[in-house]
Amino acid sequence: MSTVDPIRWQDGALQLLDQRLLPHTTTYVRCGSADAVADAIAAMVVRGAPAIGISAAYGMALAAREARLPGTSDAAEWHAALRAPRARLAASRPTAVNLFWALARVDEAVDQVCDQKGDIAAALEALAIQLHREDIAINQRLGDIGARLIEPGSTVYTHCNAGALATGGYGTALGVIRSAWRDGSLRGVYAGETRPWLQGARLTAWELMQEQIPVTLCTEGAAGSVLRDHDVRWVIVGADRVAANGDVANKIGTYNLAVLARHHGLRFMAAVPTSSFDLGIASGAEIPIEQRGAEEITHSQGQAVAPDQCAVTNPAFDVTPAALVDVIVTEYGVIENPTTAAIREHFQRHVH
Amino acid sequence: MSTVDPIRWQDGALQLLDQRLLPHTTTYVRCGSADAVADAIAAMVVRGAPAIGISAAYGMALAAREARLPGTSDAAEWHAALRAPRARLAASRPTAVNLFWALARVDEAVDQVCDQKGDIAAALEALAIQLHREDIAINQRLGDIGARLIEPGSTVYTHCNAGALATGGYGTALGVIRSAWRDGSLRGVYAGETRPWLQGARLTAWELMQEQIPVTLCTEGAAGSVLRDHDVRWVIVGADRVAANGDVANKIGTYNLAVLARHHGLRFMAAVPTSSFDLGIASGAEIPIEQRGAEEITHSQGQAVAPDQCAVTNPAFDVTPAALVDVIVTEYGVIENPTTAAIREHFQRHVH
Repeated sequence: MSTVDPIRWQDGALQLLDQRLLPHTTTYVRCGSADAVADAIAAMVVRGAPAIGISAAYGMALAAREARLPGTSDAAEWHAALRAPRARLAASRPTAVNLFWALARVDEAVDQVCDQKGDIAAALEALAIQLHREDIAINQRLGDIGARLIEPGSTVYTHCNAGALATGGYGTALGVIRSAWRDGSLRGVYAGETRPWLQGARLTAWELMQEQIPVTLCTEGAAGSVLRDHDVRWVIVGADRVAANGDVANKIGTYNLAVLARHHGLRFMAAVPTSSFDLGIASGAEIPIEQRGAEEITHSQGQAVAPDQCAVTNPAFDVTPAALVDVIVTEYGVIENPTTAAIREHFQRHVH
Repeated sequence: MSTVDPIRWQDGALQLLDQRLLPHTTTYVRCGSADAVADAIAAMVVRGAPAIGISAAYGMALAAREARLPGTSDAAEWHAALRAPRARLAASRPTAVNLFWALARVDEAVDQVCDQKGDIAAALEALAIQLHREDIAINQRLGDIGARLIEPGSTVYTHCNAGALATGGYGTALGVIRSAWRDGSLRGVYAGETRPWLQGARLTAWELMQEQIPVTLCTEGAAGSVLRDHDVRWVIVGADRVAANGDVANKIGTYNLAVLARHHGLRFMAAVPTSSFDLGIASGAEIPIEQRGAEEITHSQGQAVAPDQCAVTNPAFDVTPAALVDVIVTEYGVIENPTTAAIREHFQRHVH
């Protein structure tokens, strides 16, 4: 387990560790309604694809309680009552597919529980807790599988935060790193600071230091020199969405690292639970890429660092083509050199 | 010419535009002594290899005046008197070779003027003014030569600030961009923000906006997507030092861009006056790379953005191997696919 606890369900409300204030302030934001959860996701109180999915599931549990339809087991009535909060949650961030995956799980549960004349509000609360617990277990399995690929004495490089903070509480990329550290095969970690939100500096460095895992922070500009000169063996990242062909959408800057890893003959690993796959899209070209506001780049800590009216492009994610991905690790195993066929086979064998 | 004037010699003192405060404050720091110039270089009031060289020449002019040896034409006595300020200036930044080039020009001038029984203080002031004027003229020639390589309708990407602010007043990479814009061949410029100092945001975006050249700012993490998806034809950068074999030391992050440019089949141009070449070193492996303080990365606008005690690597420069450099443009012409032989031939034909 990890010492970091980003999502808590307490006294019938969702408590989200405010990741905007880390590493120097540890405060939880209380979300007592689905709208509050949607706002927290949009404002990046919580971020990371699995954590967004879990939070949305809790948000739907709150929406079911707010709906005040205790006597009804009519699925259509429930879906109508949940439509507005569901839409708000779905619109909170566009790229992470876990959000839509979690909402689809909620939709199915509503149908099932109505069929059985059950208590929807209680059932959705139980589902959110279950998804949360499952996510931690899935991450631990995924981390252990990925760690077996890490040769003893390895230094690795990671980007953004695909850690406990991005998930239910163990991490995907940092899950692999946690497990490799526990196994004694990891020498240390380089963390790219990850502009503009500095998740590498604020979250990953903090999270690894909590666990006493040696971490060295660098700018993304230094990545090429670090990969070339510091005996790095692996670049390990998470993903916000993986297409059917293995194209990986992840935090902006990931694609640079994949190109740099290939150039230097290093291996590139995406640590991705199956809930982050979107088999409904053939390739990364179909993944919507969130463009965030210019002020994330023109301002730093509230102060302007660029000219007024400066034009900015601020994509939050990029797509790394499958051809640059050496392995995708899921909670079920390793997909080497991912292709549409290899991913289909992995899902057929393990998921259904 | 450019509308940006980073270095002024006024009333017997050096006035340096304080680049730390741009783009929102335009203030000049007055340096009335060689020590003040050395401090300003170390503190990055002025930065950019050619601008550092020019500033150091003015610093030596100030040192000669401070030396108060009006009646002496003894070269040994002058060199002794100038030794301490020269050492301080030489230690101000380690990577930019123009600094040492300018100090060597000053050494030669001291010998010559002593031979002729001339006024050293007046001669060094005249030399600094001459180097300053020459730098602008050299940049303009270099810019015009580089601009001829830019196909009409091109979008280009630049890094850090190799502009008027980094030079006497026209720029190397931005000199090429200025000339290409004047020639009508440039569609627009992407500028990487360039962590940790944000020279791209604070200086390059500002400088290009002063000239109405369309510029779009992005994080360095977005470079890969921008180069792939936005029809960029050239990556154009300056250099702090070029080795005899064409290896290019420049602002950290340049090497990433060279790898990305090659991966995408774009061309990579280093715009470099001959004063930035160091033919005394065979390859980039011999170029000292300045490591700057951790707080440049752990703090932003005075606020901590990383955990206390976080380990950091903060190299200020990286070395791009000549094999990834498509052209080096100097004030004398274009060196295609630079090699030791091609560079030697370029210098033999043009410089001596």
